Formats: sequence, structure tokens, C-alpha cells
Amino acid sequence: MSVLTAAPGATPADEEPPDTGERHRLTAVTGLAALSLDAMASVAYGPEAIVLVLAAAGAHGLGFTLPVTLAIAGLLAVLVASYRQVIAAFPDGGGSYAVAKTHLGARTSLVAAASLVLDYVLNVAVAVTAGVAALTSAFPSLYDDRLWMCLAVLVLITGVNLRGIVESARAFIVPTAVFVVSILVLIAVGLFRSAPVSTAAAAGHASVLADNATTVGALLLLKAFASGCSALTGVEALANAVPSFRVPRVKRAQRAEVALGAVLGVMLIGLSVLISRFHLQPVAGVTVLAQLADASLGHNWAFYVIQFATMILLALSANTSFGGLPVLLKLLARDNYLPHVFALKADLQVHRHGVLALALVSAGLLVFSGGDTNTLVPLFAIGVFIGFTIAQVGMVRHWREERGRGWRGKALLNGFGAVLTGVSAVVVTATKFEDGAWLIVIALPLLVAAFETVHRAYTRIGERLGLGRVPEPPHRDRSLVIVPVSNLSRLTCEAINAATSLGDEVRAVTVCHPDAEDRAHAAALESAWEQWNPGVPLVRLASERRALGRPIASYVRAIAADEPGTRVTVLIPEVEPDRLWQRLLQNQRGAVVAHAVRKDTGAVICRLRFRLS
Amino acid sequence: MSVLTAAPGATPADEEPPDTGERHRLTAVTGLAALSLDAMASVAYGPEAIVLVLAAAGAHGLGFTLPVTLAIAGLLAVLVASYRQVIAAFPDGGGSYAVAKTHLGARTSLVAAASLVLDYVLNVAVAVTAGVAALTSAFPSLYDDRLWMCLAVLVLITGVNLRGIVESARAFIVPTAVFVVSILVLIAVGLFRSAPVSTAAAAGHASVLADNATTVGALLLLKAFASGCSALTGVEALANAVPSFRVPRVKRAQRAEVALGAVLGVMLIGLSVLISRFHLQPVAGVTVLAQLADASLGHNWAFYVIQFATMILLALSANTSFGGLPVLLKLLARDNYLPHVFALKADLQVHRHGVLALALVSAGLLVFSGGDTNTLVPLFAIGVFIGFTIAQVGMVRHWREERGRGWRGKALLNGFGAVLTGVSAVVVTATKFEDGAWLIVIALPLLVAAFETVHRAYTRIGERLGLGRVPEPPHRDRSLVIVPVSNLSRLTCEAINAATSLGDEVRAVTVCHPDAEDRAHAAALESAWEQWNPGVPLVRLASERRALGRPIASYVRAIAADEPGTRVTVLIPEVEPDRLWQRLLQNQRGAVVAHAVRKDTGAVICRLRFRLS
Repeated sequence: MSVLTAAPGATPADEEPPDTGERHRLTAVTGLAALSLDAMASVAYGPEAIVLVLAAAGAHGLGFTLPVTLAIAGLLAVLVASYRQVIAAFPDGGGSYAVAKTHLGARTSLVAAASLVLDYVLNVAVAVTAGVAALTSAFPSLYDDRLWMCLAVLVLITGVNLRGIVESARAFIVPTAVFVVSILVLIAVGLFRSAPVSTAAAAGHASVLADNATTVGALLLLKAFASGCSALTGVEALANAVPSFRVPRVKRAQRAEVALGAVLGVMLIGLSVLISRFHLQPVAGVTVLAQLADASLGHNWAFYVIQFATMILLALSANTSFGGLPVLLKLLARDNYLPHVFALKADLQVHRHGVLALALVSAGLLVFSGGDTNTLVPLFAIGVFIGFTIAQVGMVRHWREERGRGWRGKALLNGFGAVLTGVSAVVVTATKFEDGAWLIVIALPLLVAAFETVHRAYTRIGERLGLGRVPEPPHRDRSLVIVPVSNLSRLTCEAINAATSLGDEVRAVTVCHPDAEDRAHAAALESAWEQWNPGVPLVRLASERRALGRPIASYVRAIAADEPGTRVTVLIPEVEPDRLWQRLLQNQRGAVVAHAVRKDTGAVICRLRFRLS
Repeated sequence: MSVLTAAPGATPADEEPPDTGERHRLTAVTGLAALSLDAMASVAYGPEAIVLVLAAAGAHGLGFTLPVTLAIAGLLAVLVASYRQVIAAFPDGGGSYAVAKTHLGARTSLVAAASLVLDYVLNVAVAVTAGVAALTSAFPSLYDDRLWMCLAVLVLITGVNLRGIVESARAFIVPTAVFVVSILVLIAVGLFRSAPVSTAAAAGHASVLADNATTVGALLLLKAFASGCSALTGVEALANAVPSFRVPRVKRAQRAEVALGAVLGVMLIGLSVLISRFHLQPVAGVTVLAQLADASLGHNWAFYVIQFATMILLALSANTSFGGLPVLLKLLARDNYLPHVFALKADLQVHRHGVLALALVSAGLLVFSGGDTNTLVPLFAIGVFIGFTIAQVGMVRHWREERGRGWRGKALLNGFGAVLTGVSAVVVTATKFEDGAWLIVIALPLLVAAFETVHRAYTRIGERLGLGRVPEPPHRDRSLVIVPVSNLSRLTCEAINAATSLGDEVRAVTVCHPDAEDRAHAAALESAWEQWNPGVPLVRLASERRALGRPIASYVRAIAADEPGTRVTVLIPEVEPDRLWQRLLQNQRGAVVAHAVRKDTGAVICRLRFRLS
């Protein structure tokens, strides 16, 4: 059931205990609303990406917006159709990682996993920048501070997630619905207008349209196509979440998938129709979506509603990464491709590290892009398409192995999808290489290599630990406990108590340096010790200067050498002060000793916390 | 003997074990060379500080260079005389901190200590910038990169000290001698010239001389005096190092002190005579010392020799802070004014933190000053003068309590010195307040407050620990050892062995989460456990999700509540991988459990390192 969660927007496994009743699960409609968040949100930057590429060929180029969009819609159709098949084939939830693991072997599945990891990170960056762009389109005065606003939004989202809030998919239904409805209204109204009702938003902004209308080459169209395909991100989310649908799961999930394709297609085509009808020109600082809202609804409350809806949806879409990535990492950790800490159902602390790591990398990307969506979108597309391609190829394999009725048709469909997405991935990478695609080209193999290194290390360690094999029966050794002592106090007494309870024999040791005051101090301690007479010998260890831990460590080594039968334990008493900053004042000797003993000996190290009360 | 080291340029206590023979100790001459490093080095920036202030009053103002220098020489004489008395009164080595502690109470001694700390830090910054200035005077092309060069030099010095190299005072003799001799030669030769033999160095550099010759007010002269007094820093070093002189210590130290005064005085006066004779004008980018070398020796190899000698001496002078500050901190830590870690004769690691901290703060000052000596010099002077003043006031007290023969005269002398230095301190602070003196005005009280807070905390904790008091006799409790287990391996076996050796009773516990796979895993573990049959029960702890440590912690608390007589120990086995990075793959469960248990229970935590072999 955990595979459910190997994709953005899906709900982490922990959120859905197996005993959840059917009525808690998703219908086609609720499922659509709950899981299509990312896909719908991508409408905010997809069309813009197309227009910006075509603008390089001047007004003439913009004429190709609609054709390109239709091509993308075509690809969308193919993807939806083939994901319907993924749903049927993987009712337990697919996810390119799972599909590849079953049908394409470990290496490929790792590539899929790596691309997913990159997607989660880029999804945060893209959604945040696009959301801020929606806001700055409404309030142009904020445009110059967009990077800071992006970082602020990121901090906000991170803060929410640090508090451990992972909201259920259901929370997404309302904002998604609001957004979709408002976009559809925008399109519907716009279709009844022959000319833009307002161009206030774009007024006074520099047009990025090239003046010299160059000829529109195939490469340019490919570029536009590839960039625009970023509007298809998130189409896979439904296929990964089949188990959270109400029975008949597959049917409902498939229906939701088709509905998603339909709505997304309508929105994309509708928007591009309006773009051509209003002869809309891309300008710096105002999103295409904002201009369209302006043109069809006018520069009034409706305009601001759409901007805010967009902003909020994109923020939520960024948030899904924080829910999804940890779960993917958990899957990888379970398969020994990542440190097991990621698989720990541990206390909040651990979870926080992950959140912070994700936030930091995203922040890096935000700074790298200067808060500009269109720098990040292509990178995002690459990872997504790699995932698509792998999933589809995996499906082809699946059909060939299954050879069920009409398997050739299904295989053909998936194969066609694979080719399209694969080509798109290559095109984006090639055309955007210098603009940042190199990041992906470097990061992806590195990630895969890292996964494999970790995996090899775990295998080796596991073998040497004899994991799973039943070990030889345990035996009891004589136990000698050593207590480092520097003065006489309730803490010392407490330590000696613990030691006598733990050991067959106990020795207190104190380190003495060759200078006068140390010798005096040691002598004083010894006399006080005799006076106390705890029935435990106090051994004085001479030491060269600048050493406290090493003498004790070598003493321990010596004992281990002389008395092979004994198990040596070093018990280090520590004060637990009532105020946190007072930690700085305490236990430093202990830390030094523990460090040395751990480094140079095989002794067990005991730390006794003594609470001041 | 440790007080020896409470001042810049002195040798840390550890460097001079008490058994060192007399022949290893210093004579008046070697002592002078070894301990006057800082004082001599200050000649490189002292006169310059005067000239720069006076330049504000134009050529007319520069005419007062000699009178001001003479006044400073006068103060020098008073200081030397009164430090002769300090030497006599504190044959164990004085140091304003020690003097104040004996005669002026804790609060004042802390002020002295704080000012010393600031001096150490500022000494690094001033010496580095001045050294680089000497270099850039020889190679003007480097002038624009001076900040980077300062940081580079700092990194170099830090690196040397990180490697734990604290060279003995003796290493300073040669460079100090070279520097002093070359300066004296410079002066001697210059006195035989009526006009500068070369002005090549200053050529093409913008003069900082004010054109409109304003009248020279008393304030300006005070300013010049105060800034110039920075040339007196380091005069106290000898008085702090009496114990490292050969018998008769006091006599030899006093002789060295007088010699220091003489040499320093001669250099200061000599240089200022040349300044007036050559009508030298300060320019941006070339030090006054460089111009003088140029003027009297010509722009030849001799000029470069002097620049390099200066550079090297100043670098060494910066280095003394790295030897001296840790020792002062150790003194404060011994008196419970700083965390005890500073007093640990610990292994290199600890020492390194101190070095790095000092380097970071100095780097901050370098950036703050933009690599410009004359921004830092006044700040430096403030701290030094506070130290001077406190030491002298302390001496006045000393004489009044002693009431030896002619005590009035001695007290008068020290009192006079105190007034002079005190006034200078006030003047510098007032005149340079906006230029950075505010830093000191803020930092000093903060440091004192911090010292006192730490001291109070230690006293409280010490009382509650019953430090020194002989504790009640120890008793043995029944020992129950708990071993968290997640799977079966040699590590588990090793842990159970250790536990059975340490405890009267041993229980293995495993945490199980409510989801399916966890239950399956737990069941598998239990059956394997029965098969192994180590004679230790395996307890299954149910847990809400996202928790591994808490269930174990609460289990421990429950036991502690049920069985008051028992001492509970949690034994956490850890794998010690052979490669460092593999630490990332291991022991994370252990860390989480240890954290929770330490936080919520009073149980002893044992960590068993298991080396893969």
C-alpha cells in the first residue's frame, strides 16, 4: 500500500491505516478533486511556457499557440489512455518506480526514482515561483521583490510542515474546485468577447515579443511543444492512488483519470483559443493567465479572485512535495537504497530533517532561477517525462509478458506514449541544456550512483552482521565497570552506585597531569576518597599534557588485553541541568572521555544522566 | 604559574613544565627579545596613527608629530617605571586580571579579563592588517585586494595553530631582533640625511593631507596622543612573565622592562624626528614606516627587507593571541567564569574549537574594518588602556595595604600612570565612538555579564551536587537491562551478551506499529527469537504511528514506577562501520531511542559499539 504514495499529491501511507472504512475512500469525483491538484495547477504555467517560446518568432510565431496546444492535448489524450491501462494493470497503485521495479529491473527503477526525487524538489520551486508570479501580476509593485516573496512563501510552507502537519488529500478538494471553476468561467466568458474587455494588467509592462518576425522553424515548434508539456505534470498522480478509491477501485480511478484528462484538455485548449483571439502578447511581470483573466473578465474583483485562487492552489501544490517526497524516500530506504533513517516511523525530529533538506534544496533552486518560473519549468518537464517514459515502457513489457486479450493494441498505445514522452524529454534537455537542463543531466546519474553505492554498502554490512541468520547462543562474561572521576560529589556517588549495580568489579579512575596543581588536586581527591571509602579502588592515571581521554582509553585497552574474559564498561556520569543553556557548562569532560574510548576501544560506554532536583 | 600566561605574547603554562631547569629560562636580553614582540611590532602602526590624526589639520598639524610623540614617550616612561614596580610586587607574574583579583575584587578583575579578551582578538586583526599594509606598501598593485590578503594571512595563521603548533617564546627572538635592528639602522641613516633620498614608494598615491590648514586644537592633539598610544601595547607582557626569567627573576625582568622602554622610546622618537625632518606626508596605500624606509635608505633591497621584516613580525604578533587567549580562558574557566571545557587539558579537538572561534571573530573584525589598520587601532588602544589603568589602580591599593618604605612615592607613580592611561582610554572612546569604539562599549559589559552569569550557574549547580562534601556511602541496586531489538543478527547477539553480563535481569523489546507489514515483521522476529532462544524474553511494544523512541521510554518509566529498587539500563547496540561515510547508514534507530530515553527517563544509557571485522 505504500507505493500509493510514490507520487506528488498522493497521501502518505501512515495517513491511511488499513482499517479505514470504505466510506472514507474516494469516489471518482472526490478523487479527481483530491488528487488532480498538481495537474490542474500546471495550467497556470503550461500555456505561458508555450507563448514565451513562440514570442521569439514575433507576432507571427504566436499564431502557432493553438496548433502547439492541440498537439499537447493529443499527447495528454495518449497519456490518459495509457494511464487508464496502468490503473488496470497495477490496482495496488503504480508509480513509475514500482512499475519499473517489476518490469525493467533495479537500475531503471532507480532512474525513475531519481527523476521522481528531482520532480518533488522542482515541483516546490516551480509552484512557489508561479504562485508568486500570480500575485505580482495582481500587484505589480511587488514584482522586484519576487525572489524574496518566493523565499517567504517557502519558509511559510516549511514552517507548516515542520509542525508535522501532513493534511489529508481531502483538504485539497475545495481550492482545486474553486480554481478549476474560475478558469472555466474565464474561458466561457472570454469566448463571448470579440476583443479584450481590459488590458489594464499588461499596461506599462515591457513586451517580450521579438519585433523582427522570423520564420517559424520546426525546432522552435518542438521547443514550444516541449515547454508546454510541463502542463501535463501530475497526470500520473491518480494512477498511483488507486487503493484509496472506493470499490470498484479500478473503475472509479479510471473514470477520474479520464475526467482529469478532459478537464485539463478543455482548460488548455480554451486558454490557447483565447490567447489567439485576443492576440495576447507576453509581457515581463504579468502572467499570461492574469492577462487572460483581465481580457475576459475585466480588471475587477473577478480578476483578483482568479489570481488569489491560482496563488493558493500553487502554494498547496508545492506543499504536496513535502507530503510525497518523504514517502518515496521511505520506499527507497526500505529497499536499502537510502539510509534507513528515512524508513524509520520515528519521532517528529527525524521527519523534520527531511523537511528542512527539501526546503534548502528548493531555496537553492529559487535563488538559481531568480524567482522566475520559466527558468525552472523545462527542468521540471525533463524529470516528469523521464518518469512517464519509463512507466510506459514498463507497461509495454507488462502487456508482452501478460499477453492478455488485445495486448498488442494496449502495448502499442503505451509504446506510442513512451515514444512521445521520450522524444519530448530529449528535446527539452537538448534545447534547454545551457539554461539549466545540465543540472538534471548531472544530478540524475549522481542520484542513481548514490542509491547504488548505499545499496552495496548495506548488502556488505548485512552479510557481515549475519542478518536473518540465527546467531550462536549468548554467553555471560565477567563485567568490569570503569568510572572516570574528577571530584567528589553526589554525581560521583550516583555513578558509583550505578557501576556497582552493573559490574562484578568496579574501578574509579582519575587522570592526573604532570603539573603541580594537578598533582595537588589528585592527592586531595584521593584522601577524600579514602574518607568516603565506597569500597571501590581509585586508580590514578598519569598523562602527558593536553590529554584526558587518551589515558583512560589506553587503560581500557590494557585491561582488555590482560583479561580477555572480562567485558569492560566505561560509565560516564553526566549532569542534566534544568536550563538548556547550562548544558554548555556541564559534561564536557565526559564528552571528551567518551569520544576517546569510543574511538580507540571496544568497551561499552554507559552514560548516566543525573537530574538536578 | 598559570597567571604567567594572562597576557599576549606570553607562553602558555603547558609550555613550561615546572621541572624545567634554570638554564632553560630567560636572561634580561633573551627575555626582552622573546617577550617584547607585541610591543616592538606596535611601532609599525603607532606613529602612523599620530600622523593620520594630525594630517586633518594640514601640513601645520603635522608639525606637532614630534611633541605628541614625546608626550607618548613620557607616558611610556611612567608605564615602564610603574611596571617595574608591578614586577617587584607580583614576582609570580602579574597581569591586570591577577592584580585586580587580589586588590580590586571580582567585578573589576572581570572587567580586566574582558578587556584582555578583546585585546587578544583585536591584536590579531590589527597585526594582520598592519602586516598586509607593510606588504602592499612594497607592492602597491596588491593594495586593492588587501582585505582578501588579510583573510588569507589569517587562514594561514589559523591553519598553523589548528595543527596544534604553539611555538615557544624563544622562536620570536630572531625576527624581533631583525626588526628592531633594521628600524634602528633606518633611524640612524636617516639622521644623516637632510632630504629624503627617495620618494618612489609614495609617488602617485593620493595624499590624505587636508589642504586648508585649520588651527590645531587641544582636542586634535588629544586624539593624536590617544591614537598614538596604541604604540604602547605589549608593554605589560614582560611583567606577566616574571616566572620564566632566570634568577634573580625580579631583577632580570625589571632590567628587561627598562630596556624595552628604552628601545621602544628610541624607535618612536627617532621615527617621529625623521617624519618632521623629511616633511613626510601621509598617503593612502603606503605606510608611514615604508615612506621613512624609502626616504632614509632609498627604494632598494633595504626597503624591501624592512617591509618583509615588518610583515613577518606582525604576523607573529598576531599569532601570539592564539597562544595567549586560550590560557586566559583557562584561568577564567578555573575560576568558574567560563565553561570548564576551556580549562580541560583535553585532546587536540577541544583546543581547535578555541582557535576557530578566535579566527572567526578576527575575520569579522577584518571585514568590518575593510582591512584598514587605522580603523582598528583605536579600538585596540581602548582595551589595552583599560587593562593598564586597572593594573595601576590595583598597584596603588597594593602599596597602601603594604605600606612599605617609600610606599607613598610608589603609589603616587602608579596613580599618575593610572590617571594618564585612564584619561587616554576615555579620550579614545569618546573621540572614536562612532568609528567603532561603540563596539567595545557594548562588548565589554556583555562579556562581564556573561562571566558573572556563568559563575552564578556553576555555584548553584555545585551546591546542588554537594561538590567537595563527602557523599553518603554507595549501595548496590538490582539491575535490569533493556535491549531494543529490530532484527536478529550478530549485533543483536553481541548486545544480549553485554546485557546479560551487566544485568541481573535482561529484557529485549521491539516496537511494533499498527500497520500490516510491521505486524508481519514483528511476528517473524518473534519466531526467530524463539528459535534462537537466548534465555531472554522479547517484549513487543505497540506504538502509535511516527514513534520509535517514545514507546520504549514510557515502558522504562513504567518499570521505574513499578519496581523502585531496580536500576534500569537501556543498552543500545551500534555498528562501527569501517568507512566513515557508512556511519550515515547505521545506528539511526539507536540514536532516536537514546534521544527519547535520555529525554524522558532517568535510565542509564549504554552504547555498545560493534566493530565489523
